[in-house]
Amino acid sequence: MTDPTRIWTAALIVIGDEILSGRTQDKNVAQVATWLNVQGIRLREVRVVADDQHAIVEAVNILRTRNDYLFTTGGIGPTHDDITVDAIAAALGVEVVIHDEARAILTDYYATRGGLTDARLRMARVPGGASLIENRMSGAPGIRHGNIFIMAGVPHITAGMLDRLTGTLEGGSPLLSATIGCWVAESEIADLLGATERAHEGCQIGSYPFFREGRTGANFVVRSTQQSSLDACLTDLTAALEQGGWPVTSGGI
Amino acid sequence: MTDPTRIWTAALIVIGDEILSGRTQDKNVAQVATWLNVQGIRLREVRVVADDQHAIVEAVNILRTRNDYLFTTGGIGPTHDDITVDAIAAALGVEVVIHDEARAILTDYYATRGGLTDARLRMARVPGGASLIENRMSGAPGIRHGNIFIMAGVPHITAGMLDRLTGTLEGGSPLLSATIGCWVAESEIADLLGATERAHEGCQIGSYPFFREGRTGANFVVRSTQQSSLDACLTDLTAALEQGGWPVTSGGI
Repeated sequence: MTDPTRIWTAALIVIGDEILSGRTQDKNVAQVATWLNVQGIRLREVRVVADDQHAIVEAVNILRTRNDYLFTTGGIGPTHDDITVDAIAAALGVEVVIHDEARAILTDYYATRGGLTDARLRMARVPGGASLIENRMSGAPGIRHGNIFIMAGVPHITAGMLDRLTGTLEGGSPLLSATIGCWVAESEIADLLGATERAHEGCQIGSYPFFREGRTGANFVVRSTQQSSLDACLTDLTAALEQGGWPVTSGGI
Repeated sequence: MTDPTRIWTAALIVIGDEILSGRTQDKNVAQVATWLNVQGIRLREVRVVADDQHAIVEAVNILRTRNDYLFTTGGIGPTHDDITVDAIAAALGVEVVIHDEARAILTDYYATRGGLTDARLRMARVPGGASLIENRMSGAPGIRHGNIFIMAGVPHITAGMLDRLTGTLEGGSPLLSATIGCWVAESEIADLLGATERAHEGCQIGSYPFFREGRTGANFVVRSTQQSSLDACLTDLTAALEQGGWPVTSGGI
């Protein structure tokens, strides 16, 4: 029987010079994080690395061993800067091989699109021993090797691959959260937040200040794996804030 | 005299459970990356870590030693989950101290905002030996300690701190870039891209496919520290694409 208190963790490696150059705004961290929460898996750490084999190998080998799952996004296309498969194979010490099913998928996909060229066949290459993650958006599949999930970098294709994996990974209790907001400077209620968190074991309270329309406010996110604990903490926090003279907006401001 | 070919590198640590939970979309990676490019410094690696001292210490100690500069964003506010200063002090093996000038800034800032409480005074705490980075947006300053720059997580406050640092850090030649776009599947021109990159030393060509309005396209970003190399590579790439029958859009699609 699985230990109900076991916390399942994942890491994500975002691979791509375009993120590190600032050209492209990453969307996969938030997307993968949100999806993992629903699977009962916590995203514990993220690294963004360049299209550089040494950097990818280093990140893969440390993160795959200290997390239950490792996800990567980016670098699995047909061009010269797509080196994720080679780097992960090197990290695992396995050969890169052509996956027969991936070749069949690509042959079919490109039948009406000019045929399967050598460049396109690159997208059938996998670290030896891998299986595929179906890609319903475009031809080239994602790749699973042990606890590693190698996904596309283009966010809507990543989303399709995550969708295929939904419900297939063992996880624990999803981390539940609830948000409230107040027009208050967080520095005014720092002690109140700390005391409320300490009084509710298993709950974390995050404080996220903002400044809008000339006013200072903050949203407070309470997180717990237990609905009853979450509700109790939220009730106490709301009461404490309102007692202090700060009306609370459910769902955040 | 500085070696003109020296590449200056930086790392960024984004600190905060709210990014790892998917609640908040990070904007600092792209913002810091873009700013660094202008300073002639390359963002080489990014880590997103939780509000967890062990995780922060590990990332700080490896990244500060293998890069010229280390930036952090997040976790320097007044609340219980703001542990960046303590974690960085622990990583450096120094005490946390109250910085007199920071205290004076906060005293002044809160004079008309309810006074300097204990929680607010937390924002004057720095790792011993640090200097301040002025914050013109809100009271609490950022912190510099050696090659480490500790900044706020709220993007517009981070932006103000970066602005204060503009021109103060030694860097190399800024990485120049130019973008062109084509309505072409990148798999059709993978060989062409690779060959063009190999023919132009010191240039990198990134390929960024997209799918819009039912059509497949890609943008190609050429990067180099030398304007002449960049221009030559861009000219050749444009000619090769147009010869292949794919009209090129300057600036990307």
